[in-house]
Amino acid sequence: MSQLQNYHMTPEEFRRYGRLVIDWIADYYENVESYPVLSQVEPGQIQAMLPLAPPQKGEEFEDILKDVERIIMPGITHWQSPNFFAYFPANTSGPSILGDLLASGLGIQGMLWATSPACTELETRVLDWMADLIALPAKFKSTGSGGGVIQDSASSAVLTALLAARERATSFQFNEQGGTNLTVYTSTQAHSSVEKGVKVAGYGRKNLRLIDVDSNFAMRPDLLKQQIESDIKEGYKPAFVAATIGTTSSNGIDPIRAIGEICQRYGIWLHVDAAMAGTAAILPEYHYLQDGLELADSYAFNPHKWMFTNFDCDCFFVADRETLIQTLSILPEYLRNQATETGAVFDYRDWQIPLGRRFRSLKLWFVLRSYGVEGLQYHIRQHIQLAQEFAHWIEADPRFILVMPPPLNLVCFRHRSGDVFTQRLLKKLNQGGKLYLTHTVLNGLYTLRMSIGQTNTQVHHVAQAWSLIQSAVAELEAEL
Amino acid sequence: MSQLQNYHMTPEEFRRYGRLVIDWIADYYENVESYPVLSQVEPGQIQAMLPLAPPQKGEEFEDILKDVERIIMPGITHWQSPNFFAYFPANTSGPSILGDLLASGLGIQGMLWATSPACTELETRVLDWMADLIALPAKFKSTGSGGGVIQDSASSAVLTALLAARERATSFQFNEQGGTNLTVYTSTQAHSSVEKGVKVAGYGRKNLRLIDVDSNFAMRPDLLKQQIESDIKEGYKPAFVAATIGTTSSNGIDPIRAIGEICQRYGIWLHVDAAMAGTAAILPEYHYLQDGLELADSYAFNPHKWMFTNFDCDCFFVADRETLIQTLSILPEYLRNQATETGAVFDYRDWQIPLGRRFRSLKLWFVLRSYGVEGLQYHIRQHIQLAQEFAHWIEADPRFILVMPPPLNLVCFRHRSGDVFTQRLLKKLNQGGKLYLTHTVLNGLYTLRMSIGQTNTQVHHVAQAWSLIQSAVAELEAEL
Repeated sequence: MSQLQNYHMTPEEFRRYGRLVIDWIADYYENVESYPVLSQVEPGQIQAMLPLAPPQKGEEFEDILKDVERIIMPGITHWQSPNFFAYFPANTSGPSILGDLLASGLGIQGMLWATSPACTELETRVLDWMADLIALPAKFKSTGSGGGVIQDSASSAVLTALLAARERATSFQFNEQGGTNLTVYTSTQAHSSVEKGVKVAGYGRKNLRLIDVDSNFAMRPDLLKQQIESDIKEGYKPAFVAATIGTTSSNGIDPIRAIGEICQRYGIWLHVDAAMAGTAAILPEYHYLQDGLELADSYAFNPHKWMFTNFDCDCFFVADRETLIQTLSILPEYLRNQATETGAVFDYRDWQIPLGRRFRSLKLWFVLRSYGVEGLQYHIRQHIQLAQEFAHWIEADPRFILVMPPPLNLVCFRHRSGDVFTQRLLKKLNQGGKLYLTHTVLNGLYTLRMSIGQTNTQVHHVAQAWSLIQSAVAELEAEL
Repeated sequence: MSQLQNYHMTPEEFRRYGRLVIDWIADYYENVESYPVLSQVEPGQIQAMLPLAPPQKGEEFEDILKDVERIIMPGITHWQSPNFFAYFPANTSGPSILGDLLASGLGIQGMLWATSPACTELETRVLDWMADLIALPAKFKSTGSGGGVIQDSASSAVLTALLAARERATSFQFNEQGGTNLTVYTSTQAHSSVEKGVKVAGYGRKNLRLIDVDSNFAMRPDLLKQQIESDIKEGYKPAFVAATIGTTSSNGIDPIRAIGEICQRYGIWLHVDAAMAGTAAILPEYHYLQDGLELADSYAFNPHKWMFTNFDCDCFFVADRETLIQTLSILPEYLRNQATETGAVFDYRDWQIPLGRRFRSLKLWFVLRSYGVEGLQYHIRQHIQLAQEFAHWIEADPRFILVMPPPLNLVCFRHRSGDVFTQRLLKKLNQGGKLYLTHTVLNGLYTLRMSIGQTNTQVHHVAQAWSLIQSAVAELEAEL
């Protein structure tokens, strides 16, 4: 592993290609009026120019940019043309593009204050500015009882408001009780988004069943079946199972085939969440993770986690798109158009909650073409190998307990002295500033999570982390 | 209006500043290991460095970048550091950042195939690639019964799946019937996102009341009150009113104060959707649009529409954040942290549906600082003035009917010869490629919508549009 290959774009290459793209955009704005404002292509015309598979070997960045010109531009409707008078303005501007670029470059997650305090605090202040600027009453500011937040669209804003209103009107009982007798099943280790979705969608938290797991933190199909049968007996209608490939806490892998067979038998929708771990399936040796997926109804994984692609980019697959479209479609007059009427095209607004959407496949295409399948496989394989090595070091050190053999790139471990010591160790490490890791609780015990998969993490970073952990332990032991 | 000021960044300036940002990002990656991985700031530290109001006059781009270094960087947790082993990888890479930059530059909306065919077709093909790459069964590909789509996060993916499963299990009756006796009110002119939200949140479409409008397409409060009272009499519980400032079809403006007084009286949540028109309220002469907002519970407007800011960026304000947080909060162990426990910080994941979120306030900050309040006001005022002039031209031409005096920047008109002629006119104009406008139906009649507000639209673009419209009419009349 000492001889590292590197398929990543280096900072020097980024400077060069970044200028190309900046110039490309400047040229575009200088010439935007030379394009037909409304794209004149026929359905299928763009797809016909795209190969049926991504390249095995990475391509030159210049070639990708040429294909933007050749393949993509004929299929662009120019929302940034000054002759665009359709729908509504969907404006951008120089400062906004560059602010967005900087956000892409920093690549932080703003889900918690703690995950990048500047993201939360700038947002709070700027939204207070906006409230004043558009003369909103003071109660909408963070300095009062309210506050502002950036949503992806007005659709998400009204949905969010509808949810808060629903809960206020029912004294927070609809979240709990729901409005159906439909039941939902997931493991005790599943991601919190399942519970959140269950509430949002009106199933009710009380209708969510958390199925226990085995020693590898995988859902037990026998217990799932038992619960489903008992629910049916009591008059419930089992509707949804969320299985996980790679749970957040420990990378636990639910047995998809066994779960899928139960779902088939009872006509239950099977969703598979492989948000982080899905990326491992680009390696042939991990295709076994996908065993049983032919029994699933939907599957999701996030290139914006482990596959070198900017947030946001979750790949969501359904087996029966008609059900999805029938669930989410509404066609007001102002969105009617000939292409939609013919039924020859997909309108992706019917595949998602918001109406508006950005051109997110562009970055995924760039990643696939720049790295090639080979480059992606190389780096993912390396991350997994680094995690395996780290796990061996933990296992060989009598001061630590390895909670389980890591199936992929996440190593869960704890210090033998117990929760308090492990907690102090974490705090010491993170305050040192030389690395950052987080924790979870497994089998009731405080557990450290070493997640190895950052784009530029190499063997010496992991080795340094291990040496920092060892020194921190030694220092803490000396303090005892 | 011939002497135009221009606060926009020119393509030449964009080239210069774009390189600065590209170099800044390259430098960042070269030095990323020199920062403490976990930000060491205290709650409030970043906000304390930010002024309480945006600048009146635009600032130099270099100064903004300096403040990124001085104010923002201490509050960044470095998710792109190779020493980041926390949570999960949230990777980016050169090709992804540049693909995202290009998406920002193109600034298209991918909501329908027709709104930029390349966005839909590239996404379909790339997701088919991904399905093969991770060995998904063929049914998940677009070539079969299913297909892939990019969502913002795995949270949105599981919610979307939960919704489709809910509908499948209830033969599409839950969307229709809902699970409560809560009723929702909006006008016949409201955006389709209200109906979509009503279905998603489990209110049921049958519990959505569409209130009729007056001759200016504004909701009639007398009819709203009447409907609410009749619903209460029948045992329903009115829970939500969605009022609109600037409806999609015609820019109709609901009387917020009158509606708000009714909501107060019956304890109903009032949401105000000002997605496009909200931007007009940055002009003091349009502050009257905000009259009555002290009676509202939530308010949304989209800088990503008319305020020169890239999609996605919707500013959503609530008056009582506790209700919102109590509705959406779930705190699993792996997200616990000291800052959250103290309650001293906002965790914005509890203010939205997804968990993950990008640093979207950065672009809004860049826009506010680069333009200054003055620059934003200048351009918005000009757009409104252009629309007013265009409306005068329509009004003065006996071949056209101006449907209503435009309150802001959207002009609704039709040809006197009726629907078929007006429809042919639209098709001819859009196929010509020199401009793009869309239609709606108002009072049952086919109506053209001239939406004036693209960042770079100036008087000569609107004049050219008017001359193209006149020529097209002449040609169509000659064909009769």
